[in-house]
Amino acid sequence: MPQHDVWSSDPTRPLILTPGEPAGIGAEIAGLAWMRQSSESIPCFVLLDEVERLHALFAELGWRIPVAEVTSCADAIDAFAEALPVLDHRFGRKVVPGTPSSATGEAVLNAIRRAVALVRSVEAAAVVTNPIAKSVLYDAGFAHPGHTEFLAALAADDALPAPTPVMMLACPELRVVPVTIHIPLRQVPEALTRDAILHAARVTARSLIRDFGIANPRLCVAGLNPHAGEQGVLGREDIDVIAPALETLRAEGFSVTGPVSADTMFHAAARAAYDAALCMYHDQALIPIKTIDFARGVNITLGLPFVRTSPDHGTAFALAGTGKADPTSLIEALRTAREMVEGRARAAAADGV
Amino acid sequence: MPQHDVWSSDPTRPLILTPGEPAGIGAEIAGLAWMRQSSESIPCFVLLDEVERLHALFAELGWRIPVAEVTSCADAIDAFAEALPVLDHRFGRKVVPGTPSSATGEAVLNAIRRAVALVRSVEAAAVVTNPIAKSVLYDAGFAHPGHTEFLAALAADDALPAPTPVMMLACPELRVVPVTIHIPLRQVPEALTRDAILHAARVTARSLIRDFGIANPRLCVAGLNPHAGEQGVLGREDIDVIAPALETLRAEGFSVTGPVSADTMFHAAARAAYDAALCMYHDQALIPIKTIDFARGVNITLGLPFVRTSPDHGTAFALAGTGKADPTSLIEALRTAREMVEGRARAAAADGV
Repeated sequence: MPQHDVWSSDPTRPLILTPGEPAGIGAEIAGLAWMRQSSESIPCFVLLDEVERLHALFAELGWRIPVAEVTSCADAIDAFAEALPVLDHRFGRKVVPGTPSSATGEAVLNAIRRAVALVRSVEAAAVVTNPIAKSVLYDAGFAHPGHTEFLAALAADDALPAPTPVMMLACPELRVVPVTIHIPLRQVPEALTRDAILHAARVTARSLIRDFGIANPRLCVAGLNPHAGEQGVLGREDIDVIAPALETLRAEGFSVTGPVSADTMFHAAARAAYDAALCMYHDQALIPIKTIDFARGVNITLGLPFVRTSPDHGTAFALAGTGKADPTSLIEALRTAREMVEGRARAAAADGV
Repeated sequence: MPQHDVWSSDPTRPLILTPGEPAGIGAEIAGLAWMRQSSESIPCFVLLDEVERLHALFAELGWRIPVAEVTSCADAIDAFAEALPVLDHRFGRKVVPGTPSSATGEAVLNAIRRAVALVRSVEAAAVVTNPIAKSVLYDAGFAHPGHTEFLAALAADDALPAPTPVMMLACPELRVVPVTIHIPLRQVPEALTRDAILHAARVTARSLIRDFGIANPRLCVAGLNPHAGEQGVLGREDIDVIAPALETLRAEGFSVTGPVSADTMFHAAARAAYDAALCMYHDQALIPIKTIDFARGVNITLGLPFVRTSPDHGTAFALAGTGKADPTSLIEALRTAREMVEGRARAAAADGV
């Protein structure tokens, strides 16, 4: 099973949390997550953000969040219980909540670059990213389709090209992986190749083994068409593309069920029979998980050499500066990153690495 | 608002329940539903089935279900408390549970014809249909794509052509209506016309008003593409087809929201804001409802001149004859038919019809 190099990771290190779009809710949900450590188990993290603006923002909201400016991730470990540890990251101009500016775009991208550098140098254990505003970054010259592709490019080095990442959405009851993602529905049948299914399935299974400690992960694979095509009467892709890919996966030793009629896959009894659902397109994956648990969904990028998670929502400009944003998804993203880091460390120890 | 004639309906009449495929679980779930009347409220219904085989089937299962052969629907009303009322309907050969035969196909179709005739003559209040096996009926010369189209054809008469029915799936928490249904996903973008959306929305709204007593029904309409197309970046149909249809509906006075990103429509808080979700294709509608409530989904055919519901499952040949089938969906189908009949009667009374 060929795979991208996995970077070394020290599970005793904190998570590094990027600011995302600073005019969004990132800093607020980071502060709210830190505040919950007394009542909930929140893993240690360091926020990359501008120390001075955080002081002002939290003061304006009336939040008593002490900010500890740290100069290394290591310093954050002791600081975390008493203060929100922050690696200072300047935006170069005043940030107005709710009013994004392309003038801060380069600084937003640099924060992501810094975070990846920190996991590469084993100072941070994993990257958790706050939401960015793609349109703002495009205006600043951003050339990648999105956050994930940018992270993949940053993972490339002299020896290895950028990996092809796989998106997983997870909540406590369900993990889903869409094989095709942000494309028009009309383009899905063409984009749904045997190779795309194989890549998504292999990367998913590998992560379930290594990061989630599931020795023999069970994948349930949705059909593309209604009733998974009903023996070809309602479409051929289930027979011609998906089924052969699943045969290949079974021959490789993976535990795979499908193609299954997608509408019968997601009720509680059905979910108990698999560890992740492989879906053929965006809404087939996102509808069930957001129906089951709208608040706690976490976006996980599989197939990178480091662990990366993010909350499953956007910048929420309308809420920025109000203190009303919900940190639930960010908290789950932090917890999931920590769980994956520990799983990966256990797997590495078991391998004698 | 043009509409098909609605047949007169007498809400004091029983529901007529078809046998569906007799080798399936229809008779068993009918018996189980009847038995629950002591503990649950089950509306009065008459089963069309073969009296003699029911005696044998129930005896073999060890079920003490007295069967009352009735000669009219009216007789069923008094009989129902003490026995399962049955209008005898012969299949012409021995029925073997789990082993369907095209030899009984014509009798299966005749039972559906009889049921429609009974609502047409106002002897029965509504039609509830048990599942059929389409492939068995095709072998017997059945020329319609499915149950629903056959019922539509039976609704035609000299004055009016067959109506174009609309499928609704309902459970206590959600009603969904797919605009396109049993076609390959690849064909959805072409099939999704402005007229198809308008027809589904108008028929749905009319039924919510008349059958469900919702004076100002609120429809929430899903986009076709991920994120409802994200301003056209992820597909144009949301802008070019769906949005103009919704403008037309709003101009007609309907309360319509959308097109909405389909993955954000179905969690509990979102569902509270509408009475029915209009979806663009099969899985977009069926995934959320079957995820939320797999057992209690009811299939409702809107746009016919009579009320028709059915359980949202198939013939379950593997369970036939075991007594293990779950009558929950049939019970919900019976209750929903009763609710709609009473709603329609109230609406007719209010209209002075």
